[in-house]
Amino acid sequence: MKLAKNQKLLFIGDSVTDCDRAKPEGEGLFQALGTGYVSIVDAFLQSTYPELGIRVVNKGISGNNVIDLKNRWQEDVLDQAPDWLVIMIGINDVWRQFDTPFIPDRHVYIDEYEKIYRELVEHTKSEVKQLVLMTPFYIESNSNDPMRYKMDEYGEVVKRIAKEHDTLFVDTQKAFNTVLEKIYPAAIAWDRVHPNHTGHTVLAKAFLNTIDFNWRKQ
Amino acid sequence: MKLAKNQKLLFIGDSVTDCDRAKPEGEGLFQALGTGYVSIVDAFLQSTYPELGIRVVNKGISGNNVIDLKNRWQEDVLDQAPDWLVIMIGINDVWRQFDTPFIPDRHVYIDEYEKIYRELVEHTKSEVKQLVLMTPFYIESNSNDPMRYKMDEYGEVVKRIAKEHDTLFVDTQKAFNTVLEKIYPAAIAWDRVHPNHTGHTVLAKAFLNTIDFNWRKQ
Amino acid sequence: MKLAKNQKLLFIGDSVTDCDRAKPEGEGLFQALGTGYVSIVDAFLQSTYPELGIRVVNKGISGNNVIDLKNRWQEDVLDQAPDWLVIMIGINDVWRQFDTPFIPDRHVYIDEYEKIYRELVEHTKSEVKQLVLMTPFYIESNSNDPMRYKMDEYGEVVKRIAKEHDTLFVDTQKAFNTVLEKIYPAAIAWDRVHPNHTGHTVLAKAFLNTIDFNWRKQ
Amino acid sequence: MKLAKNQKLLFIGDSVTDCDRAKPEGEGLFQALGTGYVSIVDAFLQSTYPELGIRVVNKGISGNNVIDLKNRWQEDVLDQAPDWLVIMIGINDVWRQFDTPFIPDRHVYIDEYEKIYRELVEHTKSEVKQLVLMTPFYIESNSNDPMRYKMDEYGEVVKRIAKEHDTLFVDTQKAFNTVLEKIYPAAIAWDRVHPNHTGHTVLAKAFLNTIDFNWRKQ
Amino acid sequence: MKLAKNQKLLFIGDSVTDCDRAKPEGEGLFQALGTGYVSIVDAFLQSTYPELGIRVVNKGISGNNVIDLKNRWQEDVLDQAPDWLVIMIGINDVWRQFDTPFIPDRHVYIDEYEKIYRELVEHTKSEVKQLVLMTPFYIESNSNDPMRYKMDEYGEVVKRIAKEHDTLFVDTQKAFNTVLEKIYPAAIAWDRVHPNHTGHTVLAKAFLNTIDFNWRKQ
Amino acid sequence: MKLAKNQKLLFIGDSVTDCDRAKPEGEGLFQALGTGYVSIVDAFLQSTYPELGIRVVNKGISGNNVIDLKNRWQEDVLDQAPDWLVIMIGINDVWRQFDTPFIPDRHVYIDEYEKIYRELVEHTKSEVKQLVLMTPFYIESNSNDPMRYKMDEYGEVVKRIAKEHDTLFVDTQKAFNTVLEKIYPAAIAWDRVHPNHTGHTVLAKAFLNTIDFNWRKQ
Amino acid sequence: MKLAKNQKLLFIGDSVTDCDRAKPEGEGLFQALGTGYVSIVDAFLQSTYPELGIRVVNKGISGNNVIDLKNRWQEDVLDQAPDWLVIMIGINDVWRQFDTPFIPDRHVYIDEYEKIYRELVEHTKSEVKQLVLMTPFYIESNSNDPMRYKMDEYGEVVKRIAKEHDTLFVDTQKAFNTVLEKIYPAAIAWDRVHPNHTGHTVLAKAFLNTIDFNWRKQ
Amino acid sequence: MKLAKNQKLLFIGDSVTDCDRAKPEGEGLFQALGTGYVSIVDAFLQSTYPELGIRVVNKGISGNNVIDLKNRWQEDVLDQAPDWLVIMIGINDVWRQFDTPFIPDRHVYIDEYEKIYRELVEHTKSEVKQLVLMTPFYIESNSNDPMRYKMDEYGEVVKRIAKEHDTLFVDTQKAFNTVLEKIYPAAIAWDRVHPNHTGHTVLAKAFLNTIDFNWRKQ
Repeated sequence: MKLAKNQKLLFIGDSVTDCDRAKPEGEGLFQALGTGYVSIVDAFLQSTYPELGIRVVNKGISGNNVIDLKNRWQEDVLDQAPDWLVIMIGINDVWRQFDTPFIPDRHVYIDEYEKIYRELVEHTKSEVKQLVLMTPFYIESNSNDPMRYKMDEYGEVVKRIAKEHDTLFVDTQKAFNTVLEKIYPAAIAWDRVHPNHTGHTVLAKAFLNTIDFNWRKQ
Repeated sequence: MKLAKNQKLLFIGDSVTDCDRAKPEGEGLFQALGTGYVSIVDAFLQSTYPELGIRVVNKGISGNNVIDLKNRWQEDVLDQAPDWLVIMIGINDVWRQFDTPFIPDRHVYIDEYEKIYRELVEHTKSEVKQLVLMTPFYIESNSNDPMRYKMDEYGEVVKRIAKEHDTLFVDTQKAFNTVLEKIYPAAIAWDRVHPNHTGHTVLAKAFLNTIDFNWRKQ
Repeated sequence: MKLAKNQKLLFIGDSVTDCDRAKPEGEGLFQALGTGYVSIVDAFLQSTYPELGIRVVNKGISGNNVIDLKNRWQEDVLDQAPDWLVIMIGINDVWRQFDTPFIPDRHVYIDEYEKIYRELVEHTKSEVKQLVLMTPFYIESNSNDPMRYKMDEYGEVVKRIAKEHDTLFVDTQKAFNTVLEKIYPAAIAWDRVHPNHTGHTVLAKAFLNTIDFNWRKQ
Repeated sequence: MKLAKNQKLLFIGDSVTDCDRAKPEGEGLFQALGTGYVSIVDAFLQSTYPELGIRVVNKGISGNNVIDLKNRWQEDVLDQAPDWLVIMIGINDVWRQFDTPFIPDRHVYIDEYEKIYRELVEHTKSEVKQLVLMTPFYIESNSNDPMRYKMDEYGEVVKRIAKEHDTLFVDTQKAFNTVLEKIYPAAIAWDRVHPNHTGHTVLAKAFLNTIDFNWRKQ
Repeated sequence: MKLAKNQKLLFIGDSVTDCDRAKPEGEGLFQALGTGYVSIVDAFLQSTYPELGIRVVNKGISGNNVIDLKNRWQEDVLDQAPDWLVIMIGINDVWRQFDTPFIPDRHVYIDEYEKIYRELVEHTKSEVKQLVLMTPFYIESNSNDPMRYKMDEYGEVVKRIAKEHDTLFVDTQKAFNTVLEKIYPAAIAWDRVHPNHTGHTVLAKAFLNTIDFNWRKQ
Repeated sequence: MKLAKNQKLLFIGDSVTDCDRAKPEGEGLFQALGTGYVSIVDAFLQSTYPELGIRVVNKGISGNNVIDLKNRWQEDVLDQAPDWLVIMIGINDVWRQFDTPFIPDRHVYIDEYEKIYRELVEHTKSEVKQLVLMTPFYIESNSNDPMRYKMDEYGEVVKRIAKEHDTLFVDTQKAFNTVLEKIYPAAIAWDRVHPNHTGHTVLAKAFLNTIDFNWRKQ
Repeated sequence: MKLAKNQKLLFIGDSVTDCDRAKPEGEGLFQALGTGYVSIVDAFLQSTYPELGIRVVNKGISGNNVIDLKNRWQEDVLDQAPDWLVIMIGINDVWRQFDTPFIPDRHVYIDEYEKIYRELVEHTKSEVKQLVLMTPFYIESNSNDPMRYKMDEYGEVVKRIAKEHDTLFVDTQKAFNTVLEKIYPAAIAWDRVHPNHTGHTVLAKAFLNTIDFNWRKQ
Repeated sequence: MKLAKNQKLLFIGDSVTDCDRAKPEGEGLFQALGTGYVSIVDAFLQSTYPELGIRVVNKGISGNNVIDLKNRWQEDVLDQAPDWLVIMIGINDVWRQFDTPFIPDRHVYIDEYEKIYRELVEHTKSEVKQLVLMTPFYIESNSNDPMRYKMDEYGEVVKRIAKEHDTLFVDTQKAFNTVLEKIYPAAIAWDRVHPNHTGHTVLAKAFLNTIDFNWRKQ
């Protein structure tokens, strides 16, 4: 288990991270962490390692792309001084190119995405003890589907940056693919983006496995 | 893993099971299973064993005691024809003796509790493939606290019946006790009864471990 | 233009037809026809052929499959005595097989679908002046996608019945396919089922073209 | 068809244009364009010419008169840099003279109307590729009705300015008059101003015909 | 002043009478009489003749036509045993012929209107001390307008029946016409049917003048 | 009738004047004048003298006392430039001395009341064509009741100032007293302050009689 | 202290008793007893004599008069089998004679009041251990006020019946009178009927003093 | 009775004091004092000593700890110029250490608590006529429970400061302990912190006894 006593673990991202968390501060009791994978991660950490006292913070905001993250990076990441930082961003950067193709100012193309993402990582790496980069994903099993295809390209960007900076890395698309071999996307997310509880559990498991969480610990 | 392909797994109980599930039918998409341990169990089953197609049904109703269960047993359990039946009941049977001591018609004392509980199990055993009895619990670490003490007695009843009929058995109180060694009850449930996400995860883990769920299966 | 003076034109179907229509009677002013293709059809009929006084009635109900239609056929179709009857049903019959595969009682497999659909048509044909059968559809461009593939099979059933009974026929899937060559499904329907205004216009145009609506008439 | 690939088409006006559009930005998915003629125009453009990727923007605000338009012209028109600009204003300028005759500060008399309208057109003409002026209207068939009579005078102003500047021109009153020969005003608008779906379709058709929209294109 | 001590004065009609009155019993404090002319009549009676103790009851129901009145006549009129009965009905009987011309089952044509109206009067005359018949009206000054023209014909029916049975009679159309010589209809009712406070005052004054109300009494 | 063509008539006061009027501007259609005596006055003026085009404005604010009026006098009275100004204030100045006797900062004693009231009148008299001072009132028939007694003293202040400046004067208490001889206060106002429709009609009649309104004019 | 261990104490009455209690059963946690004097009595009993375990039940219903009580006596009193029964009724019986004098069917005159009240007491006396009759009241200090005068007469009826049957008796009017010597009625109840917290405390104190409650007991 | 005529009595604290009081000013009619012990105290003062005219003000704010009090001390205490000041603070200072142990910035440890508390008292003592310090409390009978144990330590701090400055002192924990000998905590507060009406009455009684309130005074 990679997390150590009293560490602060901050998640930043879009609606998949947000999930109706408390605002402005996404921590505390009463669903302050929202109803998605962040809350599942927290619940497993608290119930299995109560002695560690991990402090989980959710800073996801619905609709965000990588530019939005950059704009609030100082306040929502650096000022929070987390020990661990987990980033999952990119779904909206891609999605807007497909659902509102005629509004280009809402698109974030891959070069800009990569550039900003890398800057954020470079800027932050020395400020935190551990970085975890999670790919964006699309809950579609056909890898030739145009939006899935493009999302995979954005996922490759994340993988590349994770490698360059030797951070922890979670391939969320791969985690969903394993499940999609057995079950149709609509059983996990009607819009192929916002997962139901099953889908958020896929994300939480992928994250927890990456940090060597011990599932059988009493 | 004890569950087999296409089995129907039905949970019956009180508010801890209910958790705002869909009514009258507690199954399907869109939080139909509520926000408690039943939904966590379902999400882990679907995400880890999608090929099994387990059908999870939630028939918890807030405020129920064992008499309420008996009154709706035909419709909500037998008519549903589940393969597996999971029962967790007793918290309200005890709690009313402590929070409204002056209203005895809302109390269910231990003899009546045991008698009705045993009848339900006897009546149902041959109708299902597997029975799982979960103890009621009280999220209080002091075992001499009067309500905790009484809840333990009710838990003993459940244990005894489980043994008599050789059913699966989940000691939820024991699962909470392990966590309470490290953390104060208020961090799991302000009223020591309705768990937050961490507490529901304790319940889900205890259940899943009992059925030999494989946490590391991809 | 096939519709004649003072005829009553009744649409029956599921949520794509319903679109928040007035209940129980789906006709009259103030969005009584809902916000979908039925309302668009009505608005073009009233604005272009006000002299005909066509009476449009919407009897769609969200979530319905062909069995639900059968159960309310007497009251919602025959008792209404329409001159024209338009049927579009089948999406939920298929969808439930994919989004909740573990709840078989909500699935309507193709043999039962065809049998009931044919009975409804046979039972009704002599009661109305004109029947219009519209295929169910799935707003997905990959014809090998499992749900799209199955929806096409259900569409074939509708086409076959239309041919047998020489009714008017609207191939809604084909109408969507033309658009999907140029635009990604998410621009028309996030869940590939419930169209936005653009998607409902595709349906309305396909229907109106089938009845020889004159678009340039003043 | 006069619109070209990737052009931005902006509508500005009053409640007939607004129709509960998203604010402050009137574009995007989920009824962002409101429920009136702007949304119908958009739906026909997207469903018939998806390859053009026309970007439709709605900047109508309920209750506006020509002075209100002038006050927000920089922000809501010029700063938006549309390729096409469509203006429909004047109903409130006239209506207030009839429904609250005793509050003169809410009236805009015809000289001021003409002066401001012409300034807006002159100021904007060189900034856009195409201007479309739509007359205000009153859904009343009696042309001697005092309010209809005055509204026609305001419509003449719009026609004159359109001619002077050689813009596209939509005579909405004439479009309604054709329908009103066959049907009573109350069937289109209870208050003779806010059209139902039929009335908005009259407006959308008049606009689309003016830009040579091809109704039969697949 | 024609009303005598302790008499019960019951109004029956449609939405113009209803005006959000209390249901089922339209009498008592707290706007139980609604916000229309019935409440104005009551307020002038109570404030000017408090010594009479007139009991005013409102039995209007929105959307009603003469057939609806007939269906509830026993319960809402005869069982109430009023001393005075005031009837104003017919607007919806006419309006539906104009706003939804294509739904004939909602129309009440003039012969049926006259027949039912006369039956109600004949049936009731001996049961009450005084009958007051108020014409339906349409707040439109052009007497050649088709709906105004037809409403006048229905008004003539009421006048004829009043004469036949020698009841009190209120020509509401005439009362509005006097005002409409000076002011445009939209200042009284946007839809020319549901009056604002000014329009309801026209009705109340016409009624009170008919019963010889003394306006200057202290 | 003292009001002349196109005059602006402004009412200022407390909750009895306010009655849920539109804010910030208390004029126009749709109950902008509230539901109290101001609206009744307006409705009688518009329905009886539509040719005068009187512009009625309501600037009452619930809870106000004479100090609150002073604080908003410039904006809500002088900047509005009314031809007529009607003032009714003082109920809260007195009431707070009786319902919350222990909070003296909310009381306005009679000397301060008189001083401020007189200043307002002096300051405004030359700015308007006509001033109307209405006494505050208390709907209690026992003139020895302590609150009624004090309210009468405040009413005397208003009477004195009206006399000094030769303004129009409405003795509202006297108008209520006439009615209270025949009917108990609770039939007009449960709290003896906020009148029901009957009580507001008493106020409206008293005002209209003061300005020589002709009740029998057609 | 007259109450003994485990006794059930039931209050029946009108809105002063009801105070938004839980329905249908007025007992238990979470403001089930409402916000009035019943809840205050319960709170003092539980906090001062927790060892007695008194069970307090509230069966007040807003708007009730003595006839309404009679109609629900079997279900709401006798079937509940209380040890103590407390009755406070009569305010609405009197009030309706004053606030809606023109609706006699809502009045309960004193003879009928006395007759029904006495029957209820006779019918119930042997069924309970103790009866407490509380007078109705009117928070008005002037004993010549017509409604206060009449309320006192109804209070005399209650006193007489209490004496006849030797029940406990609470003179609530007298309790209020003591306070009203020092403070104006509006400080306790704006409408002189529904007390604020101070007024309900007057009632609770009068009741508790009657049963010899020991205020200084720890 | 220690309170004197016309004194202002101000309570400051957390949610137990707040209880949904009016904001920003916590005084006046209509539950302005909230639904907790402050309102009970006020009701007993007003009903028993109406001649004193005590002015009670509630300045509790939910969630506050001693640091929050310090931050608003000038505005909410000193600027209010009370004669008496009652302080009850500390529950949140302790509770956050137990329910969210992993968020240290929300904890107030005992040294800081004592330091700030003492400063507030020193700073205020000369500004008021009388200070009353009430201990924080925890409705748990087991004095070895970790949170109860810590709360007692904070209570000791308050006692010490009260002694140092010779203020009035209310030991709320002791008051609850007396009750808890006879009844289980859940009957008073499900979360052992927010009392029901019974618990608030315990607090009110403890306060009133401290100021020598005469319970039997008429």
